[in-house]
Amino acid sequence: MKKILCKGFSFSGVVSGLKKNGQKDLGLIYSEVPAGVAGVFTKNRVQAAPVILDRDRIKKGLCRAVIVNSGSANCCTGDQGMKDAISEAKLAADELNISDELVFVASTGVIGKPLALDKIKSAVPELIKSLYPGGINDFAQAIMTTDTVPKIVSRNGNIGGSGFNITGVAKGAGMICPDMATMLCFVCTDAAVSPDYLKEVLLSSVEKSFNRITIDGDTSTNDTVLVMANGVSGASVKSRSEKEYFRRLLDEVLMALAKMVVKDGEGATKLVDVIVKGAGSDSDAEIIARTIANSNLVKTALFGEDANWGRILAAAGRAGVVFDPGLVNISFDDVLMVKSGMGCGDAAEKKATKVLKKPEFAITIDLKKGKGTASVLTCDFSIDYVKINADYRS
Amino acid sequence: MKKILCKGFSFSGVVSGLKKNGQKDLGLIYSEVPAGVAGVFTKNRVQAAPVILDRDRIKKGLCRAVIVNSGSANCCTGDQGMKDAISEAKLAADELNISDELVFVASTGVIGKPLALDKIKSAVPELIKSLYPGGINDFAQAIMTTDTVPKIVSRNGNIGGSGFNITGVAKGAGMICPDMATMLCFVCTDAAVSPDYLKEVLLSSVEKSFNRITIDGDTSTNDTVLVMANGVSGASVKSRSEKEYFRRLLDEVLMALAKMVVKDGEGATKLVDVIVKGAGSDSDAEIIARTIANSNLVKTALFGEDANWGRILAAAGRAGVVFDPGLVNISFDDVLMVKSGMGCGDAAEKKATKVLKKPEFAITIDLKKGKGTASVLTCDFSIDYVKINADYRS
Repeated sequence: MKKILCKGFSFSGVVSGLKKNGQKDLGLIYSEVPAGVAGVFTKNRVQAAPVILDRDRIKKGLCRAVIVNSGSANCCTGDQGMKDAISEAKLAADELNISDELVFVASTGVIGKPLALDKIKSAVPELIKSLYPGGINDFAQAIMTTDTVPKIVSRNGNIGGSGFNITGVAKGAGMICPDMATMLCFVCTDAAVSPDYLKEVLLSSVEKSFNRITIDGDTSTNDTVLVMANGVSGASVKSRSEKEYFRRLLDEVLMALAKMVVKDGEGATKLVDVIVKGAGSDSDAEIIARTIANSNLVKTALFGEDANWGRILAAAGRAGVVFDPGLVNISFDDVLMVKSGMGCGDAAEKKATKVLKKPEFAITIDLKKGKGTASVLTCDFSIDYVKINADYRS
Repeated sequence: MKKILCKGFSFSGVVSGLKKNGQKDLGLIYSEVPAGVAGVFTKNRVQAAPVILDRDRIKKGLCRAVIVNSGSANCCTGDQGMKDAISEAKLAADELNISDELVFVASTGVIGKPLALDKIKSAVPELIKSLYPGGINDFAQAIMTTDTVPKIVSRNGNIGGSGFNITGVAKGAGMICPDMATMLCFVCTDAAVSPDYLKEVLLSSVEKSFNRITIDGDTSTNDTVLVMANGVSGASVKSRSEKEYFRRLLDEVLMALAKMVVKDGEGATKLVDVIVKGAGSDSDAEIIARTIANSNLVKTALFGEDANWGRILAAAGRAGVVFDPGLVNISFDDVLMVKSGMGCGDAAEKKATKVLKKPEFAITIDLKKGKGTASVLTCDFSIDYVKINADYRS
């Protein structure tokens, strides 16, 4: 793990016993000064207690710490769940000697299970003792559920001679079809960014990254993306060009994390970019790209490395968007497989099958209608996805 | 197979070589007199050649024969596909010595593969020679793809002393999430039914049966339901009460077939009725029932016999319908598992797990908001679904 330094932030991750497998399950992000904070949250009508709590606390725009547990989503846990989320924040706040209003909470894991607050309470002192600027890998591990790898992305920038850093960490794996936000993602920057712009840039980056990925079409109850900007580096994002520069770096961090999330999707063996172009509008293109990216028949064919383009066209056809199937071209990377709605024959199929054996590739559907374009990142649908999700709670 | 007699109809099914496994793949339904006909077809924007042909021919309201092949969907096959569908009908018409305008065509199988018309041509004489009133089982076998059992349902009725029969045969298995019609289904009746009522009653029966099932959320390009009424029995459906009586019998036939289709869904081990009640409206209830019935996380939990109700509530929450999660009750058959949005504990879970081990059961979600209700039949999502669909074309 290369050394990442986002000034004024420290991180930790410890074992509290919430996870049955004895792995790290409690993480903390701490900023030495109050940081500006912006967030986006799940649009699922069923929302976990920590999501409801953070939605309220974020109104003040300031944050010192985020405590995150895996092993339990603290969702559908009623009034007690809300009390537990407040207590979880207070445990960290008291030990850090800061106001609990400045502590945010996120949880991930099984829905409907009460939070074992006693385990968290016992682990908090060690959690705070182990905080250090290089502790992000421990934090990333602590927030994992069915993820197989920790997901951390970092970029350095420079404004007017002051270097700064943006570091993001995410967890994903299942129940991933974000709508507005996704899974858990925490972004820290030591640049100073105005609260309004922080919110604006987060929304725009999430729209291009996490809102364009799918693993299984199910939207989580706990989706949370928080970005904290503490200004400790001395770099300040003010002018239009500095804002664009910051936006570009944040886009890079979130896009890279989104890609890592899909690549590590439950049971996934392939990362596939579904690109629709030539649609009547961008939103038409997006609807079709999403329908293809979520089609079980397309995703099982990807797992089988079968260039079954009929399923791609059939999925496009049920998306509810008007187009002429007789005009459509479909390519796997640069191999044209379907021209004007018909297959290009055995030679093309042979080449396409080679593309399908790659771990990452693009499928491009050209509707030849207009200038609308969109892309959605997806993964294949494997036997392991079913195994993981048939046995998740046992 | 018990003997079914729908007067004036005969059936056959033979091997033409379209299927690689050497099983029956060409079927014929023949009415000795012109029958009134009504149909519903896929709403997928990508439509197979035989669907386009039947949509045109059905305008005249008369039908003598339906020729059906499996092994190829004759979809995304361009102008040649359309010529092939016309030729397929003409081959049967010429051999039967009837007008080819009275012959309908249906195809099912791989999309994008040209129809091997030579094989059909060679098999047509035998297909017609083997027509007989009791041949429906051969026909049912000939239209199967990944189906594991033939699907035939028959009901007898009596109007004014004249007995009559309604017999339906269907195929399903994959790419099943009908929208207006589904897969292939052919219904014959020897009652006389006016064309207008035949159409009306078919639409209403399909709405209650095939439009309320899902296997994998993918809508086929070849969905076709045809009902033929030849009047040979002498029973005539005229009065209001006779119409209601006929509707009830047709509902029974289509509901039973729809249930058989889900039960024989690709890789399915369980048949589950997802019932939503207490919604603000019937359409709200239907949207939520469909979202739950199509959720991969719900369906894999069903396969794992895991009463993971959090996934059911999370799927409901992303359906786009307003409700209060804190009011919701969820039952597995008569076991109350969630009360007012929270789990009912270990004893309830133990009982629910017993229900989940049954081959057929119901999940009821009560939103406690209004009087809206709807149900959607679904199946579980198994390792075999992935295996079947990863290897479908090979």
